[in-house]
Amino acid sequence: MEKKNLNRNMADLKKVRMTGGLLGLKYTSVLNNVIPYQWKALNDEIDEGDMEPSHAIENFRIAAGLSRGEFHGMVFQDSDLAKWLEAVAYQLAVTPDDNLKKRADEVIDIIALAQQPDGYLNTYYTVKEPDKRWTNLRECHELYCAGHMLEAAVAYYRATGERKLLDVMIRFVNLIDTLFGPGEGKKRGYPGHQEIELALMRLYAITNDRKHLDLAKYFIDERGKRPSYFEKEWEDRGRINHWSVFAKWDDAYNQAHLPVREQKAAVGHAVRAVYMYCAMTDVAMETNDDPLKEACRGLWENVTNRQMYITGGIGSSGYQEAFTFDYDMPNDRAYNETCASIGLIFWAQRMFLMDGESRYIDVLEQALYNGVLSGMSQDGTRFFYVNPLEVKPESCLRRHDKEHVKPVRQKWFACACCPPNLARLLASLGQYMYFQAGDGPGINLYGDSSSRFEIRGREITLEQKTNYPWEGSVGIQVKGAAETPFALRMRIPGWCREWNVLVNGKACETTRERGYVILDRIWQEGDRVELSFAMPVRVMYSATKLQENAGRGALVMGPVVYCLEEADNGKDLSSLILKRETPFDVEFRKDLLDGVNRIRAQGLRESSPSETIYTDRAPGTEPAELIFIPYYAWNNRAEGEMLVWVRV
Amino acid sequence: MEKKNLNRNMADLKKVRMTGGLLGLKYTSVLNNVIPYQWKALNDEIDEGDMEPSHAIENFRIAAGLSRGEFHGMVFQDSDLAKWLEAVAYQLAVTPDDNLKKRADEVIDIIALAQQPDGYLNTYYTVKEPDKRWTNLRECHELYCAGHMLEAAVAYYRATGERKLLDVMIRFVNLIDTLFGPGEGKKRGYPGHQEIELALMRLYAITNDRKHLDLAKYFIDERGKRPSYFEKEWEDRGRINHWSVFAKWDDAYNQAHLPVREQKAAVGHAVRAVYMYCAMTDVAMETNDDPLKEACRGLWENVTNRQMYITGGIGSSGYQEAFTFDYDMPNDRAYNETCASIGLIFWAQRMFLMDGESRYIDVLEQALYNGVLSGMSQDGTRFFYVNPLEVKPESCLRRHDKEHVKPVRQKWFACACCPPNLARLLASLGQYMYFQAGDGPGINLYGDSSSRFEIRGREITLEQKTNYPWEGSVGIQVKGAAETPFALRMRIPGWCREWNVLVNGKACETTRERGYVILDRIWQEGDRVELSFAMPVRVMYSATKLQENAGRGALVMGPVVYCLEEADNGKDLSSLILKRETPFDVEFRKDLLDGVNRIRAQGLRESSPSETIYTDRAPGTEPAELIFIPYYAWNNRAEGEMLVWVRV
Repeated sequence: MEKKNLNRNMADLKKVRMTGGLLGLKYTSVLNNVIPYQWKALNDEIDEGDMEPSHAIENFRIAAGLSRGEFHGMVFQDSDLAKWLEAVAYQLAVTPDDNLKKRADEVIDIIALAQQPDGYLNTYYTVKEPDKRWTNLRECHELYCAGHMLEAAVAYYRATGERKLLDVMIRFVNLIDTLFGPGEGKKRGYPGHQEIELALMRLYAITNDRKHLDLAKYFIDERGKRPSYFEKEWEDRGRINHWSVFAKWDDAYNQAHLPVREQKAAVGHAVRAVYMYCAMTDVAMETNDDPLKEACRGLWENVTNRQMYITGGIGSSGYQEAFTFDYDMPNDRAYNETCASIGLIFWAQRMFLMDGESRYIDVLEQALYNGVLSGMSQDGTRFFYVNPLEVKPESCLRRHDKEHVKPVRQKWFACACCPPNLARLLASLGQYMYFQAGDGPGINLYGDSSSRFEIRGREITLEQKTNYPWEGSVGIQVKGAAETPFALRMRIPGWCREWNVLVNGKACETTRERGYVILDRIWQEGDRVELSFAMPVRVMYSATKLQENAGRGALVMGPVVYCLEEADNGKDLSSLILKRETPFDVEFRKDLLDGVNRIRAQGLRESSPSETIYTDRAPGTEPAELIFIPYYAWNNRAEGEMLVWVRV
Repeated sequence: MEKKNLNRNMADLKKVRMTGGLLGLKYTSVLNNVIPYQWKALNDEIDEGDMEPSHAIENFRIAAGLSRGEFHGMVFQDSDLAKWLEAVAYQLAVTPDDNLKKRADEVIDIIALAQQPDGYLNTYYTVKEPDKRWTNLRECHELYCAGHMLEAAVAYYRATGERKLLDVMIRFVNLIDTLFGPGEGKKRGYPGHQEIELALMRLYAITNDRKHLDLAKYFIDERGKRPSYFEKEWEDRGRINHWSVFAKWDDAYNQAHLPVREQKAAVGHAVRAVYMYCAMTDVAMETNDDPLKEACRGLWENVTNRQMYITGGIGSSGYQEAFTFDYDMPNDRAYNETCASIGLIFWAQRMFLMDGESRYIDVLEQALYNGVLSGMSQDGTRFFYVNPLEVKPESCLRRHDKEHVKPVRQKWFACACCPPNLARLLASLGQYMYFQAGDGPGINLYGDSSSRFEIRGREITLEQKTNYPWEGSVGIQVKGAAETPFALRMRIPGWCREWNVLVNGKACETTRERGYVILDRIWQEGDRVELSFAMPVRVMYSATKLQENAGRGALVMGPVVYCLEEADNGKDLSSLILKRETPFDVEFRKDLLDGVNRIRAQGLRESSPSETIYTDRAPGTEPAELIFIPYYAWNNRAEGEMLVWVRV
C-alpha cells in the first residue's frame, strides 16, 4: 500500500551554499583541486611517468576535425569529459568562475563540432569505426556515453541557462529515438551499460517532452526480453567481441537476464545495476508504475540488506566489478567501486523522493561518509577505484586474487570513471542536503550550509551550524520568516536512538513521520532550532550469515565507520582484540587528517608464544590501546595495513 | 655442523606388506580402484559425459605408428601414463598380477615403438611439432615428461627386473646428455618443470653411472644463472609462447630467478619447487655438498614453518599454483595442490635420509594423513586437485577468485597430474614406513604392516599391529631373531609429549636420538615391543602473523587434522565457537567413512538477533555440540561446507 505522499523535490542546487565542515571541505577540495586536476588529466597535461594518458579531449578534437590522429583510450573515454563537464556545471551553478566557464564553453564548442550531420556523437566510432555504429550496444557504450553527455548538458543548462550543449544532445537523442524503440523499423536494442535511461529522465524534467520519457521507459521495459537483442546483435556482426571477456556469455553481467520487473536480487556489474535502478525509480515515479516501484523496493532490500558492506560499498567481486550473492562480502577482496557507491547515492535519493522514508537517506549518508569519501585522498589528487575493508599491502601486491586492490590511492586510471564521478557528486552535494516536501523545507544531511526556499511566496533561508559528523548537535537558524506557517522536516538518522529538539531554547511540539521530526508552526525571523542527536560510539555486528565478520565488530559513530590503521596501531591488525565493555575515548583532532574524531579503546594484543607456525599453546595477550580513525581517511599518512572489522 | 650419521636407507618396497588399518585401506584402494580406474581413463574408456578425455595412450600409439590421428591433451600428457606405470611397478613389486603386468608390458612395447631412432621420446613433439624439439624447455615439459618416464622405468626395473623400459630411457637420457650440459657445443638449458633431476638420481642409484649423476647435478647447478637460458631460448624461437600466461616473464615461477644455492624462500609453482628441492637434497647427499645441504635446510624451514598449511598443504595461490610469501595462507582460496603435498612427502623423506631427524617425518606424516589423503575419495574414483581448509560451496561456484576450488571431488582432469601421482605415492607407501639405519631396522610410520630386513645375515621381520592413527598404541612383533643384537629405532612423533615403551611387557632401557627411541639389545624370536603414545585431542593455534587464523584453532589428534563438516554441524560453520576448556569425546566409528574417529566437543552457536545485516546488538549464543571428522575424509557424504580453523 502506497502511503499518501507529499510532493517531494530535491533542493535547487543554486540555492544551497556549502559553508564548512567535512562536507564543505570536500566540496571545496573538488572545486580547488579535483576539477582543475582533472582538466589537466583530460588534456594530458600531467607529466608524471606512471600516469595513464587520457586523450579524452584530443579524441573530440580529432572527431571535430580540429586535430589529426588516432582515437586513444577506452571505448567509453568520452564519458570522462562528460562527467567533468557535469561537475563544472554544478560548480558554476553556485560559484561563478569566468575562466572555468570559458574553458567549458570552448570544450562544448569542440563537442558540437564533433557532432555528425545526423546528430550522432561518439568519438570512438566517429574516429575509429565509423561504419560500425550501433553494432555492439552490449559492449561498446555508445548509449552510455550519450547518457553522460546528456546529464552534463542538462546540468550545464540548469546552471547557466545556456542551451548549446543541450541542443546538441537533444539532436542526438532524437537520432537515437529514430533508431531504437518499439516502432516499426526500429531496432529493439537497449544499452549494454545503463546510464542514458536516467539521463533521459533528467532531460524530460526540463523538456517535458513525452518522447524523452517514452524512450527511457522503452529502454527499461525492453531490457531482458527474450530472444536476446544482444545475442542477435552479436550474430549480426559476425560473432565478434570488442572485449575478450565478453566472449563468455553472461546476460546477468549487464542485468539483461530477466525483464527488470522480475529481478529480485542485484546481480552483475554493480555500477550498471545501480544506474539502472535509478532510472527504474525515476520511471516508476513519473508513470506511477506500481509493479516497477515494487521491483525497486525489492532490489533495494536485496542490495542494502544482503549485499552492502557497512561502508556503503557494493559489488564484492573484482571479476566483472560485480555483485555476487547474498552475504558474500570478503573484506580484503571487496571491489566496492567508488562509482558504485556513488550510484547507490543517486538511487537512494530517488527512493527517498519516491517513498519519502528517511531510511533511504540513512544509506545515502552511510555510502557518502564511508565508501565514497574513501575514494579520494585528502588533497583531492589521488583516488581509490576499489575500496576494501581490510588491507595488507604485501598481500595486495603479491596475491593475484587481490590484484584489483591497490594499497595506495592512484593518480588516475586507464579506466578513469571514478575520479570525475566523485567530482560531479561532491560538486552537487548541496542538492542532497535539503529538500522540499509540499510547502515545507526539509533537511536530509547535516553540515555547515544554508539553503533558500520559496515558501508561501517568501524566501526562507535555513542556515546550519554544526560540527556534524563529529558531534551530534545542529543549530538551524530560520531567516526570512514573518509569521510564516510551514512544516520544517529534519531527518532523524537511523543510527540515532535519542534525540532532542528545541526552538529558541525551549521544548516544543513535534510530530514524527517516516523518520523525520516535523516542526509545524508559525515561524518568525531569526527563529533558532537546536537539534541534538545522542551519538555514542557503537560496536556493530554482522548477521551470522556474513561469515567473514564472525567474531568481529566495526566501530561506528554517527554515520562514520572507523578503522584501525597501521600508522596508529602497528602491524598485524588482526592480532588486536577490542574489549567488549571498553569505554571509548573520543577526541576531535583538528590537526589530524584535516580534522577527524580519533577514538581510543581498550583491547588486547595477541602474540605467539614461539616461532613455530603451529603450536598447541594459545597465543599470549597483553593490554593494548586501539586507535581508530574514520575509514574514509585511511591511507593519507603512509602505506600500511587497515582493518574495519576488528576482533571483539 | 653435520652430526655423525649412520647410513640410512629407505625400506625395500618388496619387503614391506601393508596389512590393514587406514594406510592399508588406502593402499588397497589404489590397487583395487585407482589403478584400474586410471587405466580406463588413460584409454578413454570411461564414458561419462562431463569427463575430460585423456588420450594419453592413444598419443603413444600415434607416435609409435600404430594409430593415425592428432595429438590431444596437454603438452605433458605423456606423464600421466608414466605415473600410472610407476604405480603399477610398485604394485607388482609386492603383489604379482599377471594381467596387470601384461597390460604394462604392452604399454611399454608401445612406448618403445614411440621412441625415435635417436632415442627421443615425447609424443607431443613427435606427433605435433617434430621440428620444434628442445626449443621451449621453459614451457613445454620435454624434460619433465622424460623424468616421469625415467622414474617409471627405474621402478619397473626394480619391481620386475625387466630392463626394456629402462633401456629405452637410458637411451633417451644419453641423447639428453649429448644435448645439454657444460660441455662444448651443448646447450646450457635446464627444465622448465623440474622432475628429471630427481629421476636421474634414481637412475644413478641403479646404474652408478657418473654421467647420470653429473647430468642431474648440472641441471641443479645451471638453474637460475644469468643471462637467462629461458630468455635466450625465447628470443631464438621468435618470442613465441606456448601458454599465453607465460608471456608475462617471471623466472620465479619455475625457480629460475636465482641459482638454487641462493634461494632462501620458496617461490613460484609449488610442485616444480618441491621436485627441485628433492633433487637438490639427493645431489647434496650424494656429493656431500654442504652449501647445497644448507640451501635445502633453509628452504625446508621456509616451506614448513612459514608457508605450509596445518594439513601439509603448500602453494597458497591458485594463480600459478604457487607459493606466495611468508604467512600468506587464506583457508578458503588455498591451492594446496595434491601433487605439491605429495612432492613434499618425497622431499621430507630425502631430508630425513640426509639428516636423520624425525622432524622431517613429522611433516611427511602431516602431509600424508591430511593434504594428500584428502585428494582422493573414499572409493578411489574422485579426486581433489585443490585442497582448501574452508569451503562454502556457493562461494566456490559463484566467486571468481575461488574458481580453482571445487566443492566436490572430480572424476578426472584435463590436467590430470594429481590422480596418478596419488596412485604412485600410495602404491609405494611401504617404503616410507620403515627404514634401515646402519645395521638396525627403523619404523617411521605406524600402521598394520610388516617389513623384512637383512640384519647380521639373518632375515628379521617386524610386524606392526595398531589402530594408529585412531589410537596411540602400537604392537611390534620381532620375528627371525635368535640372540641377534641390533638397534631398533622407532620414531616418536613430534606431536607426542608422553610415550612409553615395553619389551615383552616390561620396561626396558632405551636411548633417544634425533627424535627416535632406540632399543639397542639382543633380540629373540617373538620379542614383542609395545609402544604407546599419549594422543590427546589438541587445539592448535597459528602464529600471530598468520592473520587468517586469528582467534581460531584447529583440532588435531595424533597426526590427523579434524574439521567441521556441514553434514554433521549444519550450515554457517563460522557461527560455531569451540569452548576453550571443552572436554573432547573421541569415538572410533567403524561405520563412518570407512572407520574414523569422530570427536565431539562443546561449544556455542551464534545467531543474529535480527534480520538486519548490521546491528549494534551482539549475536546471541546457544550451547552447541561440535562434531569433528578427519579433514581428509570430508566431502564423502554430501556437498556442503567444511571448516578446519574453528573460532575458539
